[in-house]
Amino acid sequence: MQQLELNSLTQKMPPPLKNTVMVIGGAEDKVHGREILHTFFMRSGGTEAKLAIIPCASREPEAIGSRYREIFQDMGAQRIEVLDIRERTEGEDPRWQEYLEQSTGVFMTGGDQLRLCALVADTPLMEKLRMKVREGSIVLAGTSAGAAVMGHHMIAGGGSGESPNRSLVDMATGLGIIPEVIVDQHFQNRNRMARLLSAIASHPNRIGVGIDEDTCAMFEADGIVEIMGKGTVTIIDPGPALYTNEGHIGPNDPLSLYNLRVHILCHGDRFNIATREVIQRS
Amino acid sequence: MQQLELNSLTQKMPPPLKNTVMVIGGAEDKVHGREILHTFFMRSGGTEAKLAIIPCASREPEAIGSRYREIFQDMGAQRIEVLDIRERTEGEDPRWQEYLEQSTGVFMTGGDQLRLCALVADTPLMEKLRMKVREGSIVLAGTSAGAAVMGHHMIAGGGSGESPNRSLVDMATGLGIIPEVIVDQHFQNRNRMARLLSAIASHPNRIGVGIDEDTCAMFEADGIVEIMGKGTVTIIDPGPALYTNEGHIGPNDPLSLYNLRVHILCHGDRFNIATREVIQRS
Repeated sequence: MQQLELNSLTQKMPPPLKNTVMVIGGAEDKVHGREILHTFFMRSGGTEAKLAIIPCASREPEAIGSRYREIFQDMGAQRIEVLDIRERTEGEDPRWQEYLEQSTGVFMTGGDQLRLCALVADTPLMEKLRMKVREGSIVLAGTSAGAAVMGHHMIAGGGSGESPNRSLVDMATGLGIIPEVIVDQHFQNRNRMARLLSAIASHPNRIGVGIDEDTCAMFEADGIVEIMGKGTVTIIDPGPALYTNEGHIGPNDPLSLYNLRVHILCHGDRFNIATREVIQRS
Repeated sequence: MQQLELNSLTQKMPPPLKNTVMVIGGAEDKVHGREILHTFFMRSGGTEAKLAIIPCASREPEAIGSRYREIFQDMGAQRIEVLDIRERTEGEDPRWQEYLEQSTGVFMTGGDQLRLCALVADTPLMEKLRMKVREGSIVLAGTSAGAAVMGHHMIAGGGSGESPNRSLVDMATGLGIIPEVIVDQHFQNRNRMARLLSAIASHPNRIGVGIDEDTCAMFEADGIVEIMGKGTVTIIDPGPALYTNEGHIGPNDPLSLYNLRVHILCHGDRFNIATREVIQRS
């Protein structure tokens, strides 16, 4: 049933959309079915879309920008602009803001999330983007580093192969598009459960969202997150009964976290971020 | 349906333990504080202990047996026997059963859990050990492979770096000392969350217990698990509201698991395995 709905959404022109934010775990299929990228393309208006690609996370913005431009052109997009911003001051360029004003879809590529934030956070361009997401006049997608920046608190880096501990994760401030979540990407692929747990211990009023490669958490206007793609999305909900020793230990000491609610979700699963409940499949 | 299974399992479960079973995540400190090994030594009777070392998981049973013998001798143990069993028929040797009858502590080393089970599962020796654990006349400890065998369902091997899926974990039958748990060891150190989740999806009436290196889950007589050591113990409780797609998908398809209760526990934390609640620290 959900499979059918999803397919029909992918294939037909979408209805007028409000506020879809596609948070992609990196390494999305760019060659074969391209399901996630095609969904972004369709939701942005299909051949009528006016797309902006923000490649600023990458150290090779030209190459990665061209790659995505070709993909969306290949799908039939007529108007695509790569916002190859190399200096913060370019975020004030009225040209980009005018283009963004007209855009129906914005795609943020992978790379380094700190680089992306350093270039665009708190610029007029980003304010414009945030406003358009909020009013529902644009579809925003971000993959890998472009996904990491979605929350207010952002995982900037970290390790794996250790017991959860505060020093296992480096936190920074993200773009705050979906402030209530902390996103981690390439999640099971790079064994990032421990670092996301460590992040949640420090920010227990957020929801951890770990997204596997070629997998997308689609945040919809109605507060529903729907999963699409090949892997899983791990939801870590600290819940009302959380206890953590986080404030009472050293940075390398192992963390306690009691009473987490965890959901492993795959294609077609849906989670209500307001009620923090998974929507049972019928 | 799963609720029914859970209830029937609860009814079939053996009575609570009467003594300590120490389930160690591998790589326990053998040189400095040796906290976990010393605790085993003391609980087994200290200098009055009569210890048996079962090195059968290892392909170098002599070397590993000697290593632990020296450690416990160094602590002051007077009577130590290494049960260096190389053939299943030796499990019937009355000599070993007589020694075990008198023993106060049994330590199972690391190695390969399938090898350990192949040599000792369902032998009279193992029946004797199981009976003595149940009646509370012996302290049992197992590290790494010696920990993996504790449940009825045993993780024999598996992978990491993938979305949870059935083929990510190889299951076998363990020694069933603590039948209600599925143990995984070297847990965060080797990024085994996804494989333990995959195991739990197939056996949702069990509790997943992932133990980090140099960390011990001490199962006590009163149904309390207390954590000791340097790392964390991850409890995965499928809980009464679990939904999983496990029965409806292919072996490589990503798993859904809704409504898991997860606890990350560290030194001094305690979990009640009967009520499935963490005991709040005072």
